[in-house]
Amino acid sequence: MAEMDSKLQELKTRLMEISDLNGASAVLGWDQATYMPRGGAAARGRQMATLGRLAQEKFIDPAVGKLLDDLTPYGESLPFDHDDAALIRVTRREYDNATKIPPSLLGEFYQHTAIAYDAWTRARPANDFSTVAPLLEKTLDLSRQMADCFPGYDHIADPLIDFADYGMKAASVRALFAELREQLVPLVRTITEQEPADDSCLKQHFPEDKQLAFGVEVIKDFGYDFERGRQDKTHHPFMTKFSLGDIRITTRVKENDLGEALFSTTHEAGHAMYEMGINMAYDATPLGGGTSAGVHESQSRTWENIVSRSRTFWEHYYPKLQATFPEQLNKVSLDTFHRAINKVQKSLIRTDADEVTYNLHVMIRFDLELQMLEGSLSIKDLPEAWHARYKSDLGVQAPSNVDGCLQDVHWYGGVIGGAFQGYTIGNILSALFYNQALKAHPEIPAEIGKGKFGTLHNWLRNNIYTHGSKFTAPELIERVTGGPLRIDPYIGYLKEKYGELYKL
Amino acid sequence: MAEMDSKLQELKTRLMEISDLNGASAVLGWDQATYMPRGGAAARGRQMATLGRLAQEKFIDPAVGKLLDDLTPYGESLPFDHDDAALIRVTRREYDNATKIPPSLLGEFYQHTAIAYDAWTRARPANDFSTVAPLLEKTLDLSRQMADCFPGYDHIADPLIDFADYGMKAASVRALFAELREQLVPLVRTITEQEPADDSCLKQHFPEDKQLAFGVEVIKDFGYDFERGRQDKTHHPFMTKFSLGDIRITTRVKENDLGEALFSTTHEAGHAMYEMGINMAYDATPLGGGTSAGVHESQSRTWENIVSRSRTFWEHYYPKLQATFPEQLNKVSLDTFHRAINKVQKSLIRTDADEVTYNLHVMIRFDLELQMLEGSLSIKDLPEAWHARYKSDLGVQAPSNVDGCLQDVHWYGGVIGGAFQGYTIGNILSALFYNQALKAHPEIPAEIGKGKFGTLHNWLRNNIYTHGSKFTAPELIERVTGGPLRIDPYIGYLKEKYGELYKL
Repeated sequence: MAEMDSKLQELKTRLMEISDLNGASAVLGWDQATYMPRGGAAARGRQMATLGRLAQEKFIDPAVGKLLDDLTPYGESLPFDHDDAALIRVTRREYDNATKIPPSLLGEFYQHTAIAYDAWTRARPANDFSTVAPLLEKTLDLSRQMADCFPGYDHIADPLIDFADYGMKAASVRALFAELREQLVPLVRTITEQEPADDSCLKQHFPEDKQLAFGVEVIKDFGYDFERGRQDKTHHPFMTKFSLGDIRITTRVKENDLGEALFSTTHEAGHAMYEMGINMAYDATPLGGGTSAGVHESQSRTWENIVSRSRTFWEHYYPKLQATFPEQLNKVSLDTFHRAINKVQKSLIRTDADEVTYNLHVMIRFDLELQMLEGSLSIKDLPEAWHARYKSDLGVQAPSNVDGCLQDVHWYGGVIGGAFQGYTIGNILSALFYNQALKAHPEIPAEIGKGKFGTLHNWLRNNIYTHGSKFTAPELIERVTGGPLRIDPYIGYLKEKYGELYKL
Repeated sequence: MAEMDSKLQELKTRLMEISDLNGASAVLGWDQATYMPRGGAAARGRQMATLGRLAQEKFIDPAVGKLLDDLTPYGESLPFDHDDAALIRVTRREYDNATKIPPSLLGEFYQHTAIAYDAWTRARPANDFSTVAPLLEKTLDLSRQMADCFPGYDHIADPLIDFADYGMKAASVRALFAELREQLVPLVRTITEQEPADDSCLKQHFPEDKQLAFGVEVIKDFGYDFERGRQDKTHHPFMTKFSLGDIRITTRVKENDLGEALFSTTHEAGHAMYEMGINMAYDATPLGGGTSAGVHESQSRTWENIVSRSRTFWEHYYPKLQATFPEQLNKVSLDTFHRAINKVQKSLIRTDADEVTYNLHVMIRFDLELQMLEGSLSIKDLPEAWHARYKSDLGVQAPSNVDGCLQDVHWYGGVIGGAFQGYTIGNILSALFYNQALKAHPEIPAEIGKGKFGTLHNWLRNNIYTHGSKFTAPELIERVTGGPLRIDPYIGYLKEKYGELYKL
């Protein structure tokens, strides 16, 4: 026992050093996206690469493998939900994944995607797919090589999906998406046959400082802890974590669009509150982070969509918003405002899409990346395939590739495969978990209507956040809902909300 | 030759990795002092310690020693001022220093001084020397152990002084300070016998944003490059470098004291412009930083005192300052303002001291730390010894230890010995170098009077900044002035400036 304690302690010491390197790299990334002067760019990229490489080297050290070998029987002798059992189990899984990818491949991958990302930042504004096409070709090749480090898959995307959403496969995501699509397509059709909502009230001039202050008040009420975080401005909003004591969010403000900053703030605050709720004892270990891309997105979507786009929420906050922007909003009714922030339309841009059409955008990308990995779609045909799918699925056509296949950073800055399914899984899970919270506490909507979020936040913290990565997403879903992932609460949520809004 | 090239390349690769770790640590330190929420503190300290330890481990790696052994004859075969010769020579010196201190001692030292620093932050406001005395006792013991890693010294402080100001020893600093003191004491006496300058014009209300904007305009004119830096607010202003492409400064603003932010900004900008002027080819190597504490301070003092406290400077900028703060300054004459920002008085606080008395503050600390290291002054007697020296040297008595021996962070956050002499050496050097610039370009003062700094800045860059650490301070002084360090230009500068101000 003393021997196991000492080995466990050594493992934790090693994991803490790795966490320190990753935490440092996150600080450098945050600074890069918020305050760094241009002149710092070259060295910054190199510094982050060095930290990442050292963290990786230290993690795949055979001494870590030996410790895990020695500790695994001990971990298995403990109850499944014992913290040490979970630490050994989760670290083992991550170690096995990490050691299967040769460092040389990983190095080549990071080096290449840094170049591809940089090229994309110039190619998109120039509508120049031809420059990035050969880079994307190489990314595809490297993505396949990464997947091939995990032989025995059913679909070549399976290992890549598994990295982000453990337990999911191409086939299970496809089945899930098919089921969802069947419900969404008629819903989108019925809604978009109606007169579109008038969102002109959001497109007036709203001074930046007041927008920011309002968003900060809202997420303080949610329970975002400014003693352990802060919000800064950036180009592309994100959440980042340096330790469980320092979890920051960023936002961007458009003075002619009230929705931009507010909903990015509530979205990122949702991600951050998930991390802030993790058991502090898990800090600096593989348990001290959200368990999957899908579960993480479920929390950003809960706070952004289910809470801060709900009518109940605005019953409390709309008078405050009117008091903040009296000239702009005093003549706008709550109903008009609520319809504006939930306007459904067939559009070109995923990140601007409403709740109902959003998942159709995701499915297009998911299907295309699977086809690229399979080899049934070649890079040169990607622009046309993109346009064709938008035409057939959403009935819209981008005037160029800028808002077509050059739109999202994911393929240019990372692997092709595994990046998109988490968004829709997150939407599905947000309603599944929220539904469960309502069963336990039917008073939650009434509380939201008074600007009180404690009951909801505590339920999420106690049932989801606190566990960090202790349980995989499938294990967590089973624990929380007593069954597997299912879409009916999400469909129910959409039908009820948009049924009321559009009098369906 | 190819073999030497390849070894040199390997050395540079290793040094770059070490520089990346140190640069990352600097980013974490900057964030800690500017934006970090309280909750981030614990992990941040640990992360910085991890980065520091890894950088140290990588530097003292015997493989680095082997490379240096192999490269030294090659370096010595090159001209002395060849970049590669300098890189090998300077890295060798730093390596020899670093490897003489056992990692365990260094680890204990960092761990202890982190605790002592933290205790000091609470002890100072509480005027509680007794809490920190035992910690200071240990710091003294560890400082002696550090010095003892370098046997053969004349005075135990010599190795500690040498770390910061290579080539200086206790004896040479004492001789220099005695010479300076002999000139300063009568000057201070003559000035302080007169009616003190009226600085009430500085103590009005000056809104923060306008103060900051004015300071930024000034240092932009100096040539501080905002493409490679930025200024943020903090508690204790400092300059920090992440790479030669990202060199930042911080400042603090007092709305009831116009001098605070402005002169901290010009001071830190001086430090930063030194680093910004270093040959970019030296980035991420031991050549890519200022060569000594004294030379670094000389540049902060040049831009803060010689330039931005000069009457010539304000002939151009005072009308702009009046336009910025018309209500506060329109009735204040340039003469009154200039006397106010150069008010000489016997005071308690080093960092607030004027140019004439400042060095007396430094000498008190330097003498006391030498006595502590020698053992002729025990920690328990430090408070009284401090008071006694302030009484005899400056004729003032602090009401408590808050503004006595608890005043400066240096002994609480680092070694005892070697920390203070650089400030006065910097003052001496600022005038020595400036004097040399004037010999080459007598038009400099006239240009300053027009808000033009290009000639001065270029001369400093070409003669001092560009070299980084290629030459030691003594070598640099010899190169620039044709002789050793001497005080007469500094005495001449003070006598001329204060002779005019006080009609001596």
